[in-house]
Amino acid sequence: MSIVVTNPPRVDTAIVDQFAKLGVATVHEAQGRKGLMSAEIKPIFRPAEIVGTAVTCEVAPGDNWMIHVAAEQCRPGDILVVTPTSPCSDGYFGDLLAESLRAQGVRGLIMNAGVRDIATLTEMNFPVWSRTVYAQGTVKETIANVNTPIVCGGALVNPGDLIVADDDGVVVVHQSEVDSTLKNALAREENESAKRDRLASGELGLDIYGMRERLVDKGLTYIDYEKWQESK
Amino acid sequence: MSIVVTNPPRVDTAIVDQFAKLGVATVHEAQGRKGLMSAEIKPIFRPAEIVGTAVTCEVAPGDNWMIHVAAEQCRPGDILVVTPTSPCSDGYFGDLLAESLRAQGVRGLIMNAGVRDIATLTEMNFPVWSRTVYAQGTVKETIANVNTPIVCGGALVNPGDLIVADDDGVVVVHQSEVDSTLKNALAREENESAKRDRLASGELGLDIYGMRERLVDKGLTYIDYEKWQESK
Amino acid sequence: MSIVVTNPPRVDTAIVDQFAKLGVATVHEAQGRKGLMSAEIKPIFRPAEIVGTAVTCEVAPGDNWMIHVAAEQCRPGDILVVTPTSPCSDGYFGDLLAESLRAQGVRGLIMNAGVRDIATLTEMNFPVWSRTVYAQGTVKETIANVNTPIVCGGALVNPGDLIVADDDGVVVVHQSEVDSTLKNALAREENESAKRDRLASGELGLDIYGMRERLVDKGLTYIDYEKWQESK
Amino acid sequence: MSIVVTNPPRVDTAIVDQFAKLGVATVHEAQGRKGLMSAEIKPIFRPAEIVGTAVTCEVAPGDNWMIHVAAEQCRPGDILVVTPTSPCSDGYFGDLLAESLRAQGVRGLIMNAGVRDIATLTEMNFPVWSRTVYAQGTVKETIANVNTPIVCGGALVNPGDLIVADDDGVVVVHQSEVDSTLKNALAREENESAKRDRLASGELGLDIYGMRERLVDKGLTYIDYEKWQESK
Amino acid sequence: MSIVVTNPPRVDTAIVDQFAKLGVATVHEAQGRKGLMSAEIKPIFRPAEIVGTAVTCEVAPGDNWMIHVAAEQCRPGDILVVTPTSPCSDGYFGDLLAESLRAQGVRGLIMNAGVRDIATLTEMNFPVWSRTVYAQGTVKETIANVNTPIVCGGALVNPGDLIVADDDGVVVVHQSEVDSTLKNALAREENESAKRDRLASGELGLDIYGMRERLVDKGLTYIDYEKWQESK
Amino acid sequence: MSIVVTNPPRVDTAIVDQFAKLGVATVHEAQGRKGLMSAEIKPIFRPAEIVGTAVTCEVAPGDNWMIHVAAEQCRPGDILVVTPTSPCSDGYFGDLLAESLRAQGVRGLIMNAGVRDIATLTEMNFPVWSRTVYAQGTVKETIANVNTPIVCGGALVNPGDLIVADDDGVVVVHQSEVDSTLKNALAREENESAKRDRLASGELGLDIYGMRERLVDKGLTYIDYEKWQESK
Repeated sequence: MSIVVTNPPRVDTAIVDQFAKLGVATVHEAQGRKGLMSAEIKPIFRPAEIVGTAVTCEVAPGDNWMIHVAAEQCRPGDILVVTPTSPCSDGYFGDLLAESLRAQGVRGLIMNAGVRDIATLTEMNFPVWSRTVYAQGTVKETIANVNTPIVCGGALVNPGDLIVADDDGVVVVHQSEVDSTLKNALAREENESAKRDRLASGELGLDIYGMRERLVDKGLTYIDYEKWQESK
Repeated sequence: MSIVVTNPPRVDTAIVDQFAKLGVATVHEAQGRKGLMSAEIKPIFRPAEIVGTAVTCEVAPGDNWMIHVAAEQCRPGDILVVTPTSPCSDGYFGDLLAESLRAQGVRGLIMNAGVRDIATLTEMNFPVWSRTVYAQGTVKETIANVNTPIVCGGALVNPGDLIVADDDGVVVVHQSEVDSTLKNALAREENESAKRDRLASGELGLDIYGMRERLVDKGLTYIDYEKWQESK
Repeated sequence: MSIVVTNPPRVDTAIVDQFAKLGVATVHEAQGRKGLMSAEIKPIFRPAEIVGTAVTCEVAPGDNWMIHVAAEQCRPGDILVVTPTSPCSDGYFGDLLAESLRAQGVRGLIMNAGVRDIATLTEMNFPVWSRTVYAQGTVKETIANVNTPIVCGGALVNPGDLIVADDDGVVVVHQSEVDSTLKNALAREENESAKRDRLASGELGLDIYGMRERLVDKGLTYIDYEKWQESK
Repeated sequence: MSIVVTNPPRVDTAIVDQFAKLGVATVHEAQGRKGLMSAEIKPIFRPAEIVGTAVTCEVAPGDNWMIHVAAEQCRPGDILVVTPTSPCSDGYFGDLLAESLRAQGVRGLIMNAGVRDIATLTEMNFPVWSRTVYAQGTVKETIANVNTPIVCGGALVNPGDLIVADDDGVVVVHQSEVDSTLKNALAREENESAKRDRLASGELGLDIYGMRERLVDKGLTYIDYEKWQESK
Repeated sequence: MSIVVTNPPRVDTAIVDQFAKLGVATVHEAQGRKGLMSAEIKPIFRPAEIVGTAVTCEVAPGDNWMIHVAAEQCRPGDILVVTPTSPCSDGYFGDLLAESLRAQGVRGLIMNAGVRDIATLTEMNFPVWSRTVYAQGTVKETIANVNTPIVCGGALVNPGDLIVADDDGVVVVHQSEVDSTLKNALAREENESAKRDRLASGELGLDIYGMRERLVDKGLTYIDYEKWQESK
Repeated sequence: MSIVVTNPPRVDTAIVDQFAKLGVATVHEAQGRKGLMSAEIKPIFRPAEIVGTAVTCEVAPGDNWMIHVAAEQCRPGDILVVTPTSPCSDGYFGDLLAESLRAQGVRGLIMNAGVRDIATLTEMNFPVWSRTVYAQGTVKETIANVNTPIVCGGALVNPGDLIVADDDGVVVVHQSEVDSTLKNALAREENESAKRDRLASGELGLDIYGMRERLVDKGLTYIDYEKWQESK
């Protein structure tokens, strides 16, 4: 009953590439603090930074067969997002598969499991985010779905969704929210740049963000160390 | 009922800086194997090495408001030590706050939670030790204490305490124990240097430390492999 | 009742060194996917790659005494493999012991526990795989066995066994299986090299490995995204 | 920008209650091995077994305000499913909230975080599945969404979806798949009952499932212990 | 350099016993949400509920010698609180030590490590909170401190402090805060009892706590499911 | 290349059953503190206590096929010990397989992975020790070895070895060490019984074990609380 969905619509490349200058933290904030994968999905080398469109792939535990099937569905600009159907730390992906994906124009891999051959992957500069590194091999016996919606690192990923990944982790933007998220992210970026200069000059966040009054309202009290010691 | 304690006494800078040449392992041994934070508090980039005086800061889970309050309490030579009031992996701290702390003369951050923007923090060479890296944002709704005693990574930290952090982790030295710890650490360092030369020349620890007799007393027995196999 | 077994037979150095060009993942596959240590045993710096013969060493929790005893049993070309008799994350090993092992010709350390002084170990380029990094010191009060069979990271290690360690982890090859594993690994390497060129040129694994028919037999179905949406 | 969606359609109670006799493992198999929450979501007491329709609720880390909002959206036969917007182990839920939910006819709670007052919850026989037990209290400062799709324990849950929970864990059935899953589950149940009798009488699965030939095809070899020892 | 501090002042028994009717969650709230040990410190059987005064004890990893020393410092009404000087899961404590503590009038054990013989401990009804259960034995080679301040499960414990432990976990009340905490806890208990009746009768927390207006101020919006679907 | 080894020698039943009165902690001590599985292998219900002879079984991740093969190799008095070839938490085993094993005379299961149907397993009173409980199903596609040596929970298990399992965990005794371990365990049991009476009467371990002098030699110092406070 497993299926491979072909030709899902993808976020337009021109829009995708505008996210290239924005980081995961900014994009995550810009879409209302959602879509973030869990902190366990980490880059195998740093720095690493990619944006692209998702090809989604399920794999059985200990079985990487479907990655070969998914490779055929990939187009230039895609990012392959793979999740096992139950938790597994095996090394599903190595240098040969990286060569294959690179040849299809794939920009990187998000693997909710383990990968291996990371010395070679690092030399190749092929970006990978994974849950672990483990040399354990896999078999090719069980099929699963390609390009159906999956949950990866706690985030829902549909085929064609925008993926932004950097040293902080991975965030997913659903296709219907790409435009608003981009707009918010660019505005946020500009705003942060101004704030950054003021903070670097020694001005305090307490003043820049006007927090002092609200802290008093909440009941925050300042007390000198000496007086505090006496009061105990 | 939250308070900000102002002007706590700090370890003298001249003394602090004498710890700069000593590592965490040495300082930890020198004060009798205590004050070490747990192994989960790790540097976000390596190598990294700082010494300084603690400004302590509690934060609510998912809420980084008090870091802004704590920033104002920091002086040149301080290290900000932040702990959530219950376990939380959110990204409490990013590049803007790092700019702000740097402008106050802060030498680094110890964060018993998550941080983000680590590519930029690495470029800035702003040293951070944290439990995790996670792009998840925080709110500013709940207050907590600044410069009161906290437990961070299983170690008690008072405001003004000495913090030593390097690639091995983080150790706290309470103000009353700074002098004796420094003395022990310098002696230990000198002793180790001599040992190191002997070990590098091929002499064995068994002989340098005079362990052979005590091992016999404990009942350690040497047996040749062939004889051992026959005896089974 | 603890023993030190002296002079266990070791895999011949000429054979050991033929494994130097083969990685952990390849060797693990070549011996039938066994002998791999768990993913938690990781290098403290990357890249790192060693091959050698095991000297095995048990240590009590929080007690590194036996590492000094094991150091004397090491010969050039050995790798010291240390496991605590119950789980422990203490920093059993630092720069002084590394100097000592290096002086005995030891190629690296596999530590099923914690290590410390990693900035110095990295500068020394002394390769270490460990479960964690932790500055916590150890005592010298309790004895244990050296050069008896141990379980380290879930893998059985006999003294003299071949150890291969790289960025992907650590694999053990028992002495009786070294020859067949080497033969398989070299064959596998050659085979992979050919495959790699075909994959890099854009040919798909589906075709290279002849998977298409078997996927159909398993029931894999391709469906266009539009039709799939309509069918729901 | 947070919303509360009112009156989402729910699986019909008559159908829901037909799932009461089926366990999580059976339902999970019957819908093609999907929809299972992760193993970390466990009952606070055993045995416990409920079926019902989901009211979904997001909460901020360390903030249980929205559970009060969600309580008003619950109807008899519902199960409240709560997930924090980032990982949090706080005790979001205790005996008072259980009284309130029970008064609204709610059958139980699925909490992707911590709960407290479990001695009283156990006495009340109010079924709860949670990630942990922790007395840590929460605040009421930050809003979030109610009755929007959420990811809980790695599974996507829409408001109104069927929830089945027992000692093995929690499974979600989306509304469009309830009928086919029920049909499969009942068939599976009947089939298992017959198998069970044969297995209990000593017949082997190898024969009942006709596995012997396929095992030979895969290359499985039987060898007597004595011969195996000689061959080594 | 290890010490045993004798005769530390303890919270008065008459006051201690007034905490017996209050649970951990209530006491934790009543002292301003602090003093809670981490959720990993769990009872070995349920239900279990004790109050008492702390005797504090450090142990070396894998070494339970100091528990024998601490036993002599215990008085009727005490609770023994033990923490290893670095993380260790060994079974430090079993039925013999439980007999000994019970004979000294000790009410239970808080063990920041492992225990064993739990079938017998359960039969004896000797309450224990521990991090894990593990049959691994310990040695008696290394000394440490008794009745000095320790950090256990992330909470600071001084000798003589009040300990409250139940199915939800363990909370510490420092001696100077016992009176105010008791007063707050009793008031809280009374308040909760009234709330409980109202919630059980079907009244909503939204109304009892007057939350509706504040939720509107925060921007919470209600939308009917049908309209919400149309708006997407 | 997978094999099933038939008719391995087993520890004699008469001897096995003498271990029935001894617990895991006692047996573990009696054989010199080795052979213990890790603390993560826990009973699914308590109390539970079995002794028997091991039938060993490897399974591929997410694949329980070989359990059916192993069932045929079991004889009355055996305990089935199953380990996945890489870490996996799937529910490999449920009530049907329990019926089958029981029909073969198997006394219980040690599963280095997950199990399911635990409500029924508990009703059946079929003892199981496992790493987790998870309803996730498995396939039958990949073969592995039966009755070869395996590592389970960090302990080496050979077919026919003695297994002792209770509420504290699981310990393995190799066939060559069964006699000496039994002798030691019975002696230890007798010794403990006498000690237990003395401890229950209020005598201290410090005196029973004659520890006072050795503690002084190690440098342990007693200091009254008042004097200790003054000295700071």
